[in-house]
Amino acid sequence: MPASATTALPFKVADLSLAAAGRHQIRLAENEMPGLMALRAEFGDAKPLAGARIAGSLHMTVQTAVLIETLVALGARVRWASCNIFSTQDEAAAAIAVGPTGTPGAPAGVPVFAWKGETLEEYWWCTQQIFDWSAEAAADGADYLGPNLILDDGGDATLLVHKGREFELAGAVPDDAASDSHEYRVILAALRESLAASTDRWTRIASDILGVTEETTTGVHRLYELAKEGGLLFPAINVNDSVTKSKFDNKYGIRHSLPDGLNRATDVLIGGKVAFVAGYGDVGKGAAEALRGQGARVIVSEVDPINALQAAMDGYQVARLESVIDQVDILVTGTGNVNVVTLDHLLGLKHLAVVANVGHFDNEIDMASLEALPGAEKVEIKPQVHEWRLPTGRSILVLSEGRLMNLGNATGHPSFVMSNSFTNQVLAQLELYVSPENYPVGVYVLPKHLDEKVARLHLDALGVELTTLTDEQAAYIGVPVDGPYKVDHYRY
Amino acid sequence: MPASATTALPFKVADLSLAAAGRHQIRLAENEMPGLMALRAEFGDAKPLAGARIAGSLHMTVQTAVLIETLVALGARVRWASCNIFSTQDEAAAAIAVGPTGTPGAPAGVPVFAWKGETLEEYWWCTQQIFDWSAEAAADGADYLGPNLILDDGGDATLLVHKGREFELAGAVPDDAASDSHEYRVILAALRESLAASTDRWTRIASDILGVTEETTTGVHRLYELAKEGGLLFPAINVNDSVTKSKFDNKYGIRHSLPDGLNRATDVLIGGKVAFVAGYGDVGKGAAEALRGQGARVIVSEVDPINALQAAMDGYQVARLESVIDQVDILVTGTGNVNVVTLDHLLGLKHLAVVANVGHFDNEIDMASLEALPGAEKVEIKPQVHEWRLPTGRSILVLSEGRLMNLGNATGHPSFVMSNSFTNQVLAQLELYVSPENYPVGVYVLPKHLDEKVARLHLDALGVELTTLTDEQAAYIGVPVDGPYKVDHYRY
Amino acid sequence: MPASATTALPFKVADLSLAAAGRHQIRLAENEMPGLMALRAEFGDAKPLAGARIAGSLHMTVQTAVLIETLVALGARVRWASCNIFSTQDEAAAAIAVGPTGTPGAPAGVPVFAWKGETLEEYWWCTQQIFDWSAEAAADGADYLGPNLILDDGGDATLLVHKGREFELAGAVPDDAASDSHEYRVILAALRESLAASTDRWTRIASDILGVTEETTTGVHRLYELAKEGGLLFPAINVNDSVTKSKFDNKYGIRHSLPDGLNRATDVLIGGKVAFVAGYGDVGKGAAEALRGQGARVIVSEVDPINALQAAMDGYQVARLESVIDQVDILVTGTGNVNVVTLDHLLGLKHLAVVANVGHFDNEIDMASLEALPGAEKVEIKPQVHEWRLPTGRSILVLSEGRLMNLGNATGHPSFVMSNSFTNQVLAQLELYVSPENYPVGVYVLPKHLDEKVARLHLDALGVELTTLTDEQAAYIGVPVDGPYKVDHYRY
Amino acid sequence: MPASATTALPFKVADLSLAAAGRHQIRLAENEMPGLMALRAEFGDAKPLAGARIAGSLHMTVQTAVLIETLVALGARVRWASCNIFSTQDEAAAAIAVGPTGTPGAPAGVPVFAWKGETLEEYWWCTQQIFDWSAEAAADGADYLGPNLILDDGGDATLLVHKGREFELAGAVPDDAASDSHEYRVILAALRESLAASTDRWTRIASDILGVTEETTTGVHRLYELAKEGGLLFPAINVNDSVTKSKFDNKYGIRHSLPDGLNRATDVLIGGKVAFVAGYGDVGKGAAEALRGQGARVIVSEVDPINALQAAMDGYQVARLESVIDQVDILVTGTGNVNVVTLDHLLGLKHLAVVANVGHFDNEIDMASLEALPGAEKVEIKPQVHEWRLPTGRSILVLSEGRLMNLGNATGHPSFVMSNSFTNQVLAQLELYVSPENYPVGVYVLPKHLDEKVARLHLDALGVELTTLTDEQAAYIGVPVDGPYKVDHYRY
Repeated sequence: MPASATTALPFKVADLSLAAAGRHQIRLAENEMPGLMALRAEFGDAKPLAGARIAGSLHMTVQTAVLIETLVALGARVRWASCNIFSTQDEAAAAIAVGPTGTPGAPAGVPVFAWKGETLEEYWWCTQQIFDWSAEAAADGADYLGPNLILDDGGDATLLVHKGREFELAGAVPDDAASDSHEYRVILAALRESLAASTDRWTRIASDILGVTEETTTGVHRLYELAKEGGLLFPAINVNDSVTKSKFDNKYGIRHSLPDGLNRATDVLIGGKVAFVAGYGDVGKGAAEALRGQGARVIVSEVDPINALQAAMDGYQVARLESVIDQVDILVTGTGNVNVVTLDHLLGLKHLAVVANVGHFDNEIDMASLEALPGAEKVEIKPQVHEWRLPTGRSILVLSEGRLMNLGNATGHPSFVMSNSFTNQVLAQLELYVSPENYPVGVYVLPKHLDEKVARLHLDALGVELTTLTDEQAAYIGVPVDGPYKVDHYRY
Repeated sequence: MPASATTALPFKVADLSLAAAGRHQIRLAENEMPGLMALRAEFGDAKPLAGARIAGSLHMTVQTAVLIETLVALGARVRWASCNIFSTQDEAAAAIAVGPTGTPGAPAGVPVFAWKGETLEEYWWCTQQIFDWSAEAAADGADYLGPNLILDDGGDATLLVHKGREFELAGAVPDDAASDSHEYRVILAALRESLAASTDRWTRIASDILGVTEETTTGVHRLYELAKEGGLLFPAINVNDSVTKSKFDNKYGIRHSLPDGLNRATDVLIGGKVAFVAGYGDVGKGAAEALRGQGARVIVSEVDPINALQAAMDGYQVARLESVIDQVDILVTGTGNVNVVTLDHLLGLKHLAVVANVGHFDNEIDMASLEALPGAEKVEIKPQVHEWRLPTGRSILVLSEGRLMNLGNATGHPSFVMSNSFTNQVLAQLELYVSPENYPVGVYVLPKHLDEKVARLHLDALGVELTTLTDEQAAYIGVPVDGPYKVDHYRY
Repeated sequence: MPASATTALPFKVADLSLAAAGRHQIRLAENEMPGLMALRAEFGDAKPLAGARIAGSLHMTVQTAVLIETLVALGARVRWASCNIFSTQDEAAAAIAVGPTGTPGAPAGVPVFAWKGETLEEYWWCTQQIFDWSAEAAADGADYLGPNLILDDGGDATLLVHKGREFELAGAVPDDAASDSHEYRVILAALRESLAASTDRWTRIASDILGVTEETTTGVHRLYELAKEGGLLFPAINVNDSVTKSKFDNKYGIRHSLPDGLNRATDVLIGGKVAFVAGYGDVGKGAAEALRGQGARVIVSEVDPINALQAAMDGYQVARLESVIDQVDILVTGTGNVNVVTLDHLLGLKHLAVVANVGHFDNEIDMASLEALPGAEKVEIKPQVHEWRLPTGRSILVLSEGRLMNLGNATGHPSFVMSNSFTNQVLAQLELYVSPENYPVGVYVLPKHLDEKVARLHLDALGVELTTLTDEQAAYIGVPVDGPYKVDHYRY
Repeated sequence: MPASATTALPFKVADLSLAAAGRHQIRLAENEMPGLMALRAEFGDAKPLAGARIAGSLHMTVQTAVLIETLVALGARVRWASCNIFSTQDEAAAAIAVGPTGTPGAPAGVPVFAWKGETLEEYWWCTQQIFDWSAEAAADGADYLGPNLILDDGGDATLLVHKGREFELAGAVPDDAASDSHEYRVILAALRESLAASTDRWTRIASDILGVTEETTTGVHRLYELAKEGGLLFPAINVNDSVTKSKFDNKYGIRHSLPDGLNRATDVLIGGKVAFVAGYGDVGKGAAEALRGQGARVIVSEVDPINALQAAMDGYQVARLESVIDQVDILVTGTGNVNVVTLDHLLGLKHLAVVANVGHFDNEIDMASLEALPGAEKVEIKPQVHEWRLPTGRSILVLSEGRLMNLGNATGHPSFVMSNSFTNQVLAQLELYVSPENYPVGVYVLPKHLDEKVARLHLDALGVELTTLTDEQAAYIGVPVDGPYKVDHYRY
């Protein structure tokens, strides 16, 4: 465990100049995150989150720093870890730890347990730290052990509580099974150590938790599974399926970061090229629009006939990848499915075609088969950009080794997009803390009026004038003047 | 009542040359309605609608003719009326009545009760005729009175059955109330006559009906109200909310027909002009895209902050109409709301600005106040195009008197768009007739796999190649290889 | 010759209600022709064309009516014929003949010799009338015979003067040659009659003419030929190659009228279809943009590698027609070349594909071979829309029999586009009349500052704010503050 | 002078691993520079440049490396310097110096005199080295002093020859004048040293030179001035005004690199923002298209009414900067003019608006006034990105200190764009060397058939199929089947 574990600044790099650089970036990001800043303005005085103890597990980036400081501005106390071993921006972590005043250890600094390039052991140690509120309890003269709210991304923090309590109830942590992944063994080891130290730590922690707000598809999927099995311990709000999350993050985020990543990785002219986009969901729609906007000719593939018809109506050629593979200069996947690009596809591409994935997982492109291909040679052009020399005599350029290239080759979603997601998060935390009576144990999407509120808070920054319904008009369509305006199944 | 009522060709104009012209258009439309033609190919031999007696009430256009002949090809017998007094295309009606062989009275001719420009009395007489299956019953030696299925658009046919039965149960038709509309008085009169002739006609008819498939928002709204009140007599399928209806009809239909209507009405160059689109739902999205595609600068208004944010992210200026009224050359409404364009707006427009509505009802523009304005003068430029000379000294050009200009100034949705809607209709009829056990009394949307089937049937015509999931991929995302592919709340 | 030849209203249809309808349209068109209206405002008091006698030969449309009345407002007297036997809009001709006051024969009425559907004999008779200024000379007590300026479109008026004088000098009109077209024989006959009546009529007319301003490529081509051969009798201004003519008329005019014509002709949904555009010059650029703006997938063909590369960089597939013919739903030609679409192409198209030409001449599509094809059958769907049933069993829809479909199936260029062209015309007339010393015999394009002026006069109507150079900036780039701003070879 | 001056690898960094990295990049760039590679294929055997001695002065980048090796492949010998003190990519220079074999000093290595970050003294020393062919002459046993061709970018190499000869003729180099820039003093010093060493060196060099090919506007402007004054010593080809240079480089290059630079500099979401583009020439057209393609709302300013009208017809709002300054999130200049953005504009922008220049010179934005503003504070966010805190309390983000941000914040034009420019360069060198009889002293643009050839050589890489004229078609439009296809004033 890191030596810094017991200090007030429990992250690897606590350099003040790093914190200062992070502070600069946070200040710039605040300007692009109007939703969060509006919540500070609205609730900063009332501090509705006073008393809230939030355990956060979400990529420790500059944007997350603005989220954290918003939670603090609303009265919450916060402990934070990243939800990915690589995604921490150290300067953001440093700035958050130091706090806005720039004085190390000053009150506003938030305990952060995150650095770029953690081992799995370190990662789960960090995650445990966000549940250890002993210092705060001591300062309060109170006897709680942990947080009363979780803000999660991918469900690891939620998993830890559920598994910890489960094993405490069982009285034992199971032995490692042969099929267990390395990561699961790390978790089991940590919980064995916990169980040895306390037989009811996670049970007590779980009982204090009012609920969790979850950021992503994956985490949401776990929550629905838990709820279906009857194992869910506290209410959960599914932030992922807010319109202002899913339709903005996926479509407009990718529209921005796909060409950004292509350019940083390769400097290849997009104009005039044939770009193939696998999948025409929100991610694919954003990708196709971005590539067309740069003058590429875009071909789309789809398995769902409705999305395929949408692509055709939007003017794109819709074809199977194998039908056009020898024309493709830029190949982009964003389907959410596995092995969408096979080894045969890779072997059929034009010389030095660019292969990039913007789907969530790294298995859209069958990298495993490529790596196992006799005679294939991998040459690093620069970090996250590899030329694969194929036995065919041709080469291809693979970005980020098939992982999310908008993170690996660019800088992920821009702040404005994240502001939408994170404003949903803060509103969801407020719901669980202020109105727990509305949320019996179960999984919820945010009510539509809050989804609309998230959008509303982002309009001024773009100079958007919203029209107001007259009373007559509101009555005519049967909605309140201030919304919500649509039926739940409205598709936007 | 028309003299033709008792003949085999019960419509006003039964001219054979008219029928021949209609047949030409039907043949061209068939090429643009691949979904319907595919159903003929799939089910033409099996004739799964054999025994079905369909009472249809839907605009008697060329596209509807292809729908009717598809129902017939699947084995159904059909009687048809229009659902609007103005919307019949007489050549289409003539062709349907005469039948594909072109011989008047030959078997394939379908009894059609529709002509362009009906009075309200004639309209409701026509609607009654589609429930009078006495001739068919006589031929069959059977004792049914009416249809066993309704295909409805707006709910008038369904209304007639429900009201007829209600008054039969009550034993009397109520007197006209002072607040009753002219149209409702016509209905009451018709039902009084019916009750005098038979005390259980509608009750018996209702008991034979397996269900109704409904085309539009308005009709669907009535059905949900009926179901909520417990008054719904048979199952209903809401075709309107199929994705392949609502997202195609509204968006791609308007994208086509808005500029078409503007051009036919005014011949004004759209390029370089400032166009204002009120509403950024599917209709507004299609309108804005069409106008931008013609080089206009588009400004959008919205009351829903989510849609407003979408408009901004799509690159449009979002403003209140009053803020920019003096810049607007072309004003388009498609909100579904009332008085979106007020008299003040109209008075503030540029000289000879064009005012057009593509929303469903004619009250989006406050025409009543304009008509009542002292000093305003209305000059007909050509049918459906009026210059209003205003007291300000400026004029404006109002299209279709504020009614749906894509119908009034253009020719409505193109066949390909209607093919999507109507393929949903046929599949819905099949569901009710073939699998009635799946549909207890209630209102249903079409199952997603049928929605996907509708899309699927339109792909070949556009040269779209659909990708097929591998078993591995289907398992990975947890869907059948052949779909359905998405959760119900997926937004497309 | 028509009986009306000697009357004050020498056109076929002089119906006052027709004139009133034309007046309506003229008033609406004036709002869309801000360049012409601005010239009236600028020069209406000074009347710089006082004394000018203009013989005009240009399509007698509503837009031309605004042109004529602008010339009159600037002080000119005008006589007018159409330059095409079909292109006259009778209501426009009537309105012009009657004059703005609406009183037949009132002073403002302009002698117009044009009606829709002239014979060739009538056409050339009409053209002669615009050179007969005897009535005006009598009224003036002057001895001139004809005009002192020509405004020409296609060069027929100019041809008549040159040929008339040539034959007078030769003392005889040549006999018809076997190879002479019917039209040329009509011209020779007219000039024989003229020579019989006077041996120096055209010689005297020619000597009075200060110059001609020519509208089109064809006419300009003739002028350059004449000048090269040394036969040009007076200076000529080539209006066709003004930037505000060629880059606006071709690109933005077609962008507007191509989809307009497709819609009026066929009502086929453009979205989702494969559209092929032959030629990527200005016409093709406008066509491709319009089709993409409606959601079509556009494929382009080109012979010039520079234009081909532009098309690729703009994101279009560039292919030879024969390579993709079996995918094409909509085929558009705009190349300026001959037999671009061959019979083989026509036979290879999809069933009921639409074939349309927006190039100047009707030989881009090899209609002759189609008409000669054994087994092909032509069925009129409606005027200017024909289904050709092919021996292959497929049909195609040919618009306007291969002639300019934006004229045949739509209404040609919108007024705003024509305002640019016609403002060039008026400025060119002013140049020749006011500053003849600048124009020795030869062919000129309008000086760049006038080209810029044309653009400038169209900005206010579109709400465009123009930025003004500071003196420092003008000096820095070495141009006057008020322009001209660019070197002659600048490509825009 | 650098110690390396007398070695075989006369650049600062001769590290072999640097050369290897450069070689990787050159290989990737070759795939994106099909025009140059096609010339190698066409002329590599014939070696038409055998005997050519080319002195090159042009940014020593990876793309230029491909240019240099193309010249070598065509038989030329080459010496190279950069034309800008900052623009050398050291790995490209290293790779070129080492040569394709990777063996230092091996024959293919080209003498390169360029490194990133030269002083002005070093810069002009480097430029002199490309004229010193004594080693080559010694090896040849010949008596020439210098090159027989110049390939220039900006005209510095050409200037040196002209000034050197001028002062030799005068017998003296003038004293420094008070108004002389530092750079000019450096030049004078170098030529004084040269004159002291030889009284006819530059005179002899000049007499051997067959001509120069010039890349940029600035250099071309100097050449036309020289020619006008009668001082031009040898023919010059203006590569800058080839269509495949000016219309591609400016429009499509900027379309690519503007959003790339914005993203790398700021990571700010472009979608939904208000972007202002000053200037709607080719650069502005590319910038506006790129920003719209990313979902920004674009406002354009123009001084030329023709370009302004184009912008309006393309659907952009056209406004003066001061009219909309308080709405602008992203401000882009590309006018070629000075002080387009004044201090008042900068003070009026939104908080943290981004200010970026893509015009050639760094004076489009009045940075001098900003730097002199009392109370303004400049904070470096990262290299080439500065926050300026203004006395108004707002900040702005200035990219690349107002210099070309596509170079400073991105990586300049992509290889494919440069391939067009450089293929023009090689063809121009061939013209001067192979057909000098066609080029008496004067300034020429490349003949249109070569401009077309440049385009032609870039089509295959994009999968473009070019259509071939039939003999009939070529005759019809009066051009050879193989082109050139257009009149010189055609605007594309």
